[in-house]
Amino acid sequence: MQRSPLAPAYFPALPPIAGVKLRVAQARYKDWDRCDLTYVELDAGTAVAGVTTQSLCPSPEVEWCRDAIPLGSARALVVNAGNANAFTGHRGRAAVEAIAAKVANHLGCLPSDVLISSTGVIGVPLPIDKAEAGLEAAFDAAPCDWEAAATTIGTTDTYAKGAHVSAMIGDTRVELVGIIKGSGMIAPDMATMLGYIFTDAAIDPALLQQMLSAANKRTFSCITVDSDTSTSDTVLAFATGKAGNAPITSMDDAGTDAFHAALTDLCRQLAHLVVRDGEGATKFVEISVEGAVSDESAHRIGLSIANSPLVKTALAGEDANWGRVVMAIGKAGEPADRDLLSIRFGATQVATGGLAVEGYDEAPVAAHLKGQDIQIGVDLGLGEGRATVWTCDLTHGYIAINADYRS
Amino acid sequence: MQRSPLAPAYFPALPPIAGVKLRVAQARYKDWDRCDLTYVELDAGTAVAGVTTQSLCPSPEVEWCRDAIPLGSARALVVNAGNANAFTGHRGRAAVEAIAAKVANHLGCLPSDVLISSTGVIGVPLPIDKAEAGLEAAFDAAPCDWEAAATTIGTTDTYAKGAHVSAMIGDTRVELVGIIKGSGMIAPDMATMLGYIFTDAAIDPALLQQMLSAANKRTFSCITVDSDTSTSDTVLAFATGKAGNAPITSMDDAGTDAFHAALTDLCRQLAHLVVRDGEGATKFVEISVEGAVSDESAHRIGLSIANSPLVKTALAGEDANWGRVVMAIGKAGEPADRDLLSIRFGATQVATGGLAVEGYDEAPVAAHLKGQDIQIGVDLGLGEGRATVWTCDLTHGYIAINADYRS
Repeated sequence: MQRSPLAPAYFPALPPIAGVKLRVAQARYKDWDRCDLTYVELDAGTAVAGVTTQSLCPSPEVEWCRDAIPLGSARALVVNAGNANAFTGHRGRAAVEAIAAKVANHLGCLPSDVLISSTGVIGVPLPIDKAEAGLEAAFDAAPCDWEAAATTIGTTDTYAKGAHVSAMIGDTRVELVGIIKGSGMIAPDMATMLGYIFTDAAIDPALLQQMLSAANKRTFSCITVDSDTSTSDTVLAFATGKAGNAPITSMDDAGTDAFHAALTDLCRQLAHLVVRDGEGATKFVEISVEGAVSDESAHRIGLSIANSPLVKTALAGEDANWGRVVMAIGKAGEPADRDLLSIRFGATQVATGGLAVEGYDEAPVAAHLKGQDIQIGVDLGLGEGRATVWTCDLTHGYIAINADYRS
Repeated sequence: MQRSPLAPAYFPALPPIAGVKLRVAQARYKDWDRCDLTYVELDAGTAVAGVTTQSLCPSPEVEWCRDAIPLGSARALVVNAGNANAFTGHRGRAAVEAIAAKVANHLGCLPSDVLISSTGVIGVPLPIDKAEAGLEAAFDAAPCDWEAAATTIGTTDTYAKGAHVSAMIGDTRVELVGIIKGSGMIAPDMATMLGYIFTDAAIDPALLQQMLSAANKRTFSCITVDSDTSTSDTVLAFATGKAGNAPITSMDDAGTDAFHAALTDLCRQLAHLVVRDGEGATKFVEISVEGAVSDESAHRIGLSIANSPLVKTALAGEDANWGRVVMAIGKAGEPADRDLLSIRFGATQVATGGLAVEGYDEAPVAAHLKGQDIQIGVDLGLGEGRATVWTCDLTHGYIAINADYRS
C-alpha cells in the first residue's frame, strides 16, 4: 500500500518510558512475513485507564478491557494484528481468556492485569495455538523500539504512527509516548483504531481515567474517516509511576493541569495521525464550528459536515461548494438558522447572513482548497457553543480500497 | 449522462388525470437548450397535501409550501429546474413571491393556491425575470404529456420517472399518477428529491395529508442514496375530485383502505425509481430488519446499514462482507445483542447466533451479489419490530459525479 500523501516525513524519535518493555513476534495470524503480535511488559504498580468503542456489538477484547480497566492496574498489553476476533462468539472469548491466562502465568500476575486488543478480519475466531506460540516467541524476544511496536500493531495503515509530549509535575519532568493504528474506522480485511499511551508519571488510575475520558472527548471522538464505528476501537493509557514525581491523586495537585494538557495534546496528535492515513485521503480537513447553542450541538454539527459524502467529495474535487456545507448543517437536526449562518473556507468568508458573500475573492479560496490542509469555519450566530472536528476527503482511493477487494 | 443501469426499460404509459393540465417551457435557468419550467394547472376544488425535507435550513420554496399545504387547496404547481434558490436570503423569497403572484393573477386565485419547487444550484437567487418569462411561455404552451413533465423537472436524473396505480372507491375507479426526480439526496450542481402525485379522487385534504404522511414514512423516508438530506426535498399530492367518487372524508369511508394502499404503493414505486437512479449506482439494495425492539428501532438500524460507506462499497465489490453489516448494526445506537444476530444475503443465512454459519454455501451468495437486486436480511432476535429500507451501492461513479466536478 502506497504511503499516504498526508503522512509525516518520518517516524519521530520517541524516548523510552521507564517501566515499559516492548517486544514483537510473528504469530502468523495471516499468511504473511511480518511481526503481528505486540507484547508490552509493564512494571508492577502501573496504573491503567481506557476508552472503548460505543459499538453495541463489540469484540470480546473490548468486553475484556471494559471489565479490566476499572480495576486500575496493568502488567501487560497484548495486541494481535490480522484478526479482529470480532463476532466470533464463545470461541472468540476463549481465545482472549487463553491469552490472559498465559501472560498471567508468565508474569505471576492476575489475568485481569493483562489488557488485550485484536484488529483485522472479522468473524474468524483468533486461533489460540497461534496466539500462544506467538506469545512464547515474544517472551523470548529482545526488546524493540517504538517504531517496531507501532508498525506491528498496524494493519491497513500506510505508515507507523507515534508521538511524544512531556510535562513538568513540580520539578519532575514526565514523558508521555503514544502509538496508534487506524486508517478507516473499520475496514475490509482489517483496520480499526487502537491507541496506546505510556507515561512514567505517577498518577492515580481514577484520575488518569478522568483525564483520558476528557481528552478522548476532544480528540479521538472528534475524528471521522467514513462515519463507520469499529467493533474494536480502544485507547489505553498506562502510567508506570517511575518518573519519581509526587503522585497525582487529585485534580488540585500541582502539575495536574500540565499533565492533563500534555495528555490531551498527545491524544490530538495521535488522532490527527489516524485521519492523515484515512483510506484514500488526499486532504486533511479541520472543521471549526462556533456560535452553536452548546458545545455538544457544535460537535454534532461538525460531525454532520465531516461525515457528509457530498462535502467530502467536493473537497476531493477542490470545490468551494459551501451549499453542501449548508445542507450538512441543515440535516444535523441541531438548532440552526439559515439566515444567520456564516461559512469560511480557509481565511475567506464565502457566505454570511444567509447569502453568498457577493464578489468574494475566489483566488485565495481556490489556492486554499488546492492545498493538503483544509479549514472550514462555520459560525451559526446563535450562542457560545463551539467544537472542532477533523476528517479527510472522500476519493476514488476510498472506493478502490473498500470495493475493489474481496473478503 | 449515461442512463442508469438500474433504470426501467421505458417510461410507462400513464393515463391523464381529469382536472390536471401539464405544460412546460424554457426559462433558461441555465445556459441549456431544454425545458426547465413545469407549470401544472389544477381545476378549482383540488385538494393538496405534502411532506417536505426535515432540513432546518430549507429553501424558501419549502417554506412557502409548508405555509400553503395546511390551507388544503391548490390551483397550480410550478417547478423550476436548474436553480434550487436555496440559501439565497430575501432575494430568494422575493422570487417565490413573484412566481406565486404571477400565477395567481393569471388564474384569478390566491397566491397560496400556487405550490412552488425549485431544484438545482444552491446559493444563486432564482432570476425573477427568467421565471416570469418562462411562466408567460408556459401559459401559452400546448398541454404536454407526463413524460415531458417528468423530464422537465429532472436535473442530474439519467431517466424520466413516473408511475401509475388505481383503486376502486365504491364502484368508482380512481387513478393516481406520480412523477418524481432525484438521483442523490442533493447533488453538485443540482438534484434533490421532488415528487408530485395527481389523482382524480375526491378526498378531504386533511385525510389526504394523513395518508401521504403515513405513506411517506414507509417509502420516501426509507430510501437513502448518500445519507445527505436536501434543503429542498418535497412531495406533494393533488386530488382534483373529478372521478365522481363519493368523497372520502373519514378513515372509515368505503374505499379508504384501497385508496391508502394504492397511494402507498405509488409512493414506494416512485421512491424505488429514485434509488435506481442513485449517483453511480450499479445495485439496488433492499435491507429488511426484523426482531428489533420496535419498528422505529428497526428503521434506524436499517438506515445505519444503508448509509454505511463500508457496507455500500462492499456491495459494489460484490463482497458478502457481513462483518460490515454487524459493524453498522453496532453503531446504530439501538438495542442489539451480538450473540442473537442473524444475517442473510439473498436467501442464504451467513451468520447466526453471533457466529458465521459454518460451511454455508457460498455459491448462491456470490451469484446473488453479482445480480442487480440485492437483499440483505437482519434478524436481531429481540422483539417484533421490523422495517425495510432501500439504497444503492457506493461506487467510483459516485465519486466521479460528485468530486470530478467544479461548481
